[in-house]
Amino acid sequence: MNTLLKKTIAAGALSILLAISSVTAQNYYKNGKAWVTKAEALKPVLKETIIEPKSIVEIVKNKDAFQGWEAKAVAPIDSLYDQSIRKLNSVIVDLGDHYTGYFSFDLATIWGSPDSPVRFRFTFGEVPSELVTPYEPFNGGISRAWLQDQEYNIMYLPGSYKIDRRMACRYIKIDLIGSSPYFDFKINNLKFKAVTSAKNTPKELPASTPEMIKNIDKIGLNTLKECMQTVYEDGPKRDRRLWVGDMYLESLANVYSFENHELTKRCLYMLAGLSDDEGYVLGTVFEAPEPHAQAGQRLMDYSLLYNATLKEYLAATNDMETAKELWPVAKRQLAIINQYVSDNGLVDYERANGEWWLFFDWKDGLNKAAGIQGLMIFALNETYELAKLLNVENEISEVPSLIKKMKRAALKNMYNFKTGLFECGDDHQISYASQAWMIMGDVLSEKASQKALANVMKHQEALQPGGPYMYHYFIQALVKSNMYDEAKTVLTDFWGGMVDKGADTFWEVYDPTNDLISPYGFFPINSYCHAWSCTPVYFIRKYPEIFQK
Amino acid sequence: MNTLLKKTIAAGALSILLAISSVTAQNYYKNGKAWVTKAEALKPVLKETIIEPKSIVEIVKNKDAFQGWEAKAVAPIDSLYDQSIRKLNSVIVDLGDHYTGYFSFDLATIWGSPDSPVRFRFTFGEVPSELVTPYEPFNGGISRAWLQDQEYNIMYLPGSYKIDRRMACRYIKIDLIGSSPYFDFKINNLKFKAVTSAKNTPKELPASTPEMIKNIDKIGLNTLKECMQTVYEDGPKRDRRLWVGDMYLESLANVYSFENHELTKRCLYMLAGLSDDEGYVLGTVFEAPEPHAQAGQRLMDYSLLYNATLKEYLAATNDMETAKELWPVAKRQLAIINQYVSDNGLVDYERANGEWWLFFDWKDGLNKAAGIQGLMIFALNETYELAKLLNVENEISEVPSLIKKMKRAALKNMYNFKTGLFECGDDHQISYASQAWMIMGDVLSEKASQKALANVMKHQEALQPGGPYMYHYFIQALVKSNMYDEAKTVLTDFWGGMVDKGADTFWEVYDPTNDLISPYGFFPINSYCHAWSCTPVYFIRKYPEIFQK
Repeated sequence: MNTLLKKTIAAGALSILLAISSVTAQNYYKNGKAWVTKAEALKPVLKETIIEPKSIVEIVKNKDAFQGWEAKAVAPIDSLYDQSIRKLNSVIVDLGDHYTGYFSFDLATIWGSPDSPVRFRFTFGEVPSELVTPYEPFNGGISRAWLQDQEYNIMYLPGSYKIDRRMACRYIKIDLIGSSPYFDFKINNLKFKAVTSAKNTPKELPASTPEMIKNIDKIGLNTLKECMQTVYEDGPKRDRRLWVGDMYLESLANVYSFENHELTKRCLYMLAGLSDDEGYVLGTVFEAPEPHAQAGQRLMDYSLLYNATLKEYLAATNDMETAKELWPVAKRQLAIINQYVSDNGLVDYERANGEWWLFFDWKDGLNKAAGIQGLMIFALNETYELAKLLNVENEISEVPSLIKKMKRAALKNMYNFKTGLFECGDDHQISYASQAWMIMGDVLSEKASQKALANVMKHQEALQPGGPYMYHYFIQALVKSNMYDEAKTVLTDFWGGMVDKGADTFWEVYDPTNDLISPYGFFPINSYCHAWSCTPVYFIRKYPEIFQK
Repeated sequence: MNTLLKKTIAAGALSILLAISSVTAQNYYKNGKAWVTKAEALKPVLKETIIEPKSIVEIVKNKDAFQGWEAKAVAPIDSLYDQSIRKLNSVIVDLGDHYTGYFSFDLATIWGSPDSPVRFRFTFGEVPSELVTPYEPFNGGISRAWLQDQEYNIMYLPGSYKIDRRMACRYIKIDLIGSSPYFDFKINNLKFKAVTSAKNTPKELPASTPEMIKNIDKIGLNTLKECMQTVYEDGPKRDRRLWVGDMYLESLANVYSFENHELTKRCLYMLAGLSDDEGYVLGTVFEAPEPHAQAGQRLMDYSLLYNATLKEYLAATNDMETAKELWPVAKRQLAIINQYVSDNGLVDYERANGEWWLFFDWKDGLNKAAGIQGLMIFALNETYELAKLLNVENEISEVPSLIKKMKRAALKNMYNFKTGLFECGDDHQISYASQAWMIMGDVLSEKASQKALANVMKHQEALQPGGPYMYHYFIQALVKSNMYDEAKTVLTDFWGGMVDKGADTFWEVYDPTNDLISPYGFFPINSYCHAWSCTPVYFIRKYPEIFQK
């Protein structure tokens, strides 16, 4: 509710200032608070577009459709506007595509004088299954409140009404659950005010581009556009906030599409300003009620990817001023590496994994020892690149030798020269993640990289990527290793699979073998428009010679 | 929701103006619209009182308690403020009395950073049963939306929150139905902003007054106070609007208690301004989204009681100006009588009952032929009294002879000289309503009145009053007939019954033999604070010699 939100911000301010101070009390960077202010000054004004529903749909069982449900158009939207919602009682409308924003409608009397309040339940769904899957009893591992269903009591009608909670959806289910026998009314003038900070129109792909690539690009752009709000959100349905890993991939895609570099700048400043009292960038921050960090959210791979994001931002914009101002933050993240790399050049995985969250992928049982070794080397390389662009490599002169040492250690301890594959853990686990990150870290020659990637794809027991986020790095590793056909095939197979299943936006999790997979134990709470899935936009547009033919 | 309401008023204005014009287009009274404006100018500023819950209660089965449920205090309210609402999950708090207004609360973090929205369901109850009776599946005869339960999603916390729907309740149930395992929080600073237009403090009853009378008076005052909002409402939970019959009894009680005569004046002007295009006062009108009448709501006994209300207002205030201005309305209501009284002086009951709603009481099978005959004569008497106070009796000089004719017809056609009782219908139905209204109409001598009332109370098959509203007229008839002991006994037995069952305010319907009776097929939707039940305040304070000893 709007009033609610306003009150929250007003009343939340004090309590939140305490919350912030607990994170940045003796702020590590003397400019910390100023950076948050700078970030707030960069808050984009969102572009608004009024969308009208295209049709009334029925959601019907179809074993071939995604999650077994298909939306079938049964009538034009106008047919809703002429009839009694009391008689209709329940209806689902289709916006025609995925949008993020605010729903409004009118209620008009057909006969009688409204002598009582009426009650609706609205349900907003990104995919058809969300409209027909019972939410109760709820057994998901995260908050029930993420689900986009809500009761509304309307005390007086006729009138115009607006739902103040921002929703992300394509389909809207309207259930009338309370009305009076003494008057009749209809619902009409349904509108959805879509918002985004993606304002430019990316250039068309050449007509010669294969249809499937065109589709993947189009849906990828849609996904990115929906996630671009007042920050790079991970997903407009959930979690609706800034995570470093999502920002990294979104900002890469943004460079080759919407080019809203100001948004990247805002996010970089906000993350810097809300870093913890040791100067480490936290995995995620919140914009409301007041900008604040998730206390103690130390996510090692994300902290290190902050540096890569800053480097890419500088490379794309040549905005030296920002990069210079935030350089101390990038430099400070290297302390994470120094803390956990032993003299032998190997990451102390047990300790790192015990003291920080290592994410990498939604993949049960994934051993991240090789992944973090490779990612740290990648971060060192990126940070050194950044330093060179800023002419401050002297400030981190120890980095090149550290890189050498860590590469040697990786090869010596984790590389199987027979199979040409990286292994880790007592069970010598072989995963796509380990190979990808070691190659991202430049640990292998091109030839050896090609062998590792080819072999892992042939390997029966190798742990495959759990979702789109890890697929990005695997494809990046293939591209880096000049395995263009394989890169295109993996991208086309994985994202093309979502296209074939009717995706309007790309999903948080996708397993071609299991439509109902969920990291939260309840698939309707998954995000079906998720930032880290927009990455084909980056590949297709950065490497036309690979992906556009 | 507040925003919703504002939008409704804003956007509803247009559509409502149409609605009004359809009722008062060629307004019968040239001042009709001006009267509505005058009523709006008289809208009272409500007195606000901040109430804090007194305790945490459990609602437990108790076959001796009203409707089988009793609220037992189990802990002081402060004990709620120290603990996790996530662990508690569900709690019921007690405001200590019935209040009408707005609920607000704070949410504060205990540990972690709120990483998700939370969802509550709040349920507001006037009586304990409303908190523990399942509302689904709902089979009531009126809108489900009247029930005071509601889901709320809170997107950001900590903060302060306010529920913008006005509630009428003593008990508030808080159910947490969505939260995150990654942070904990508590609910505190619960407040209820109580509102009323009853501002004066009525004078204390003498210490010598019997306890039960003191209790009935106290609860009656509470009931009246709660129903006095920006109009005389029928009930603050339901229907939250102005009905003529309720207004009549409330304004009578108001004269002897809160003395807010401006409120009566506002209601008289609003009803006059919103009367239909034949000048008939409608049974009920609405304040929002814009003042308007319930189209075609012709309620004959209520239209006629408008005149009695205006007369009582003048008698209490000597406000000749208002009475003069509204006199044409009173005069016009007499046309209803002339339309339905045949040459023989008898009301054409079939036609009247077919063309208008005759209410009188919630009582199945009640034949209202004698009732309407008596009520019309009563209305004629009251209107003639009003005319005399205004020195305009010449304008209705035909009234006295009409009264005579109608009395004669009543005695000739409906009075059983053997039994001394009025009968009506083919089955010679005998009811309290028939006797009461004939006596209100002054049809019988005092002696005959006493006989009729004594006999009806002895009569086994006589239809008794169905609820408080009819009990008022029956008691008034007893008082009128100098049957003081009986009047006091009936009042003490009936309202005392509610007192003994723990009423905080008097109820819309009360049947000593059936706690679960409901005119709507579902007792939780009954109003448990209902205007027409406040009438003991009037009897006790107007007739101290009868009721205060």
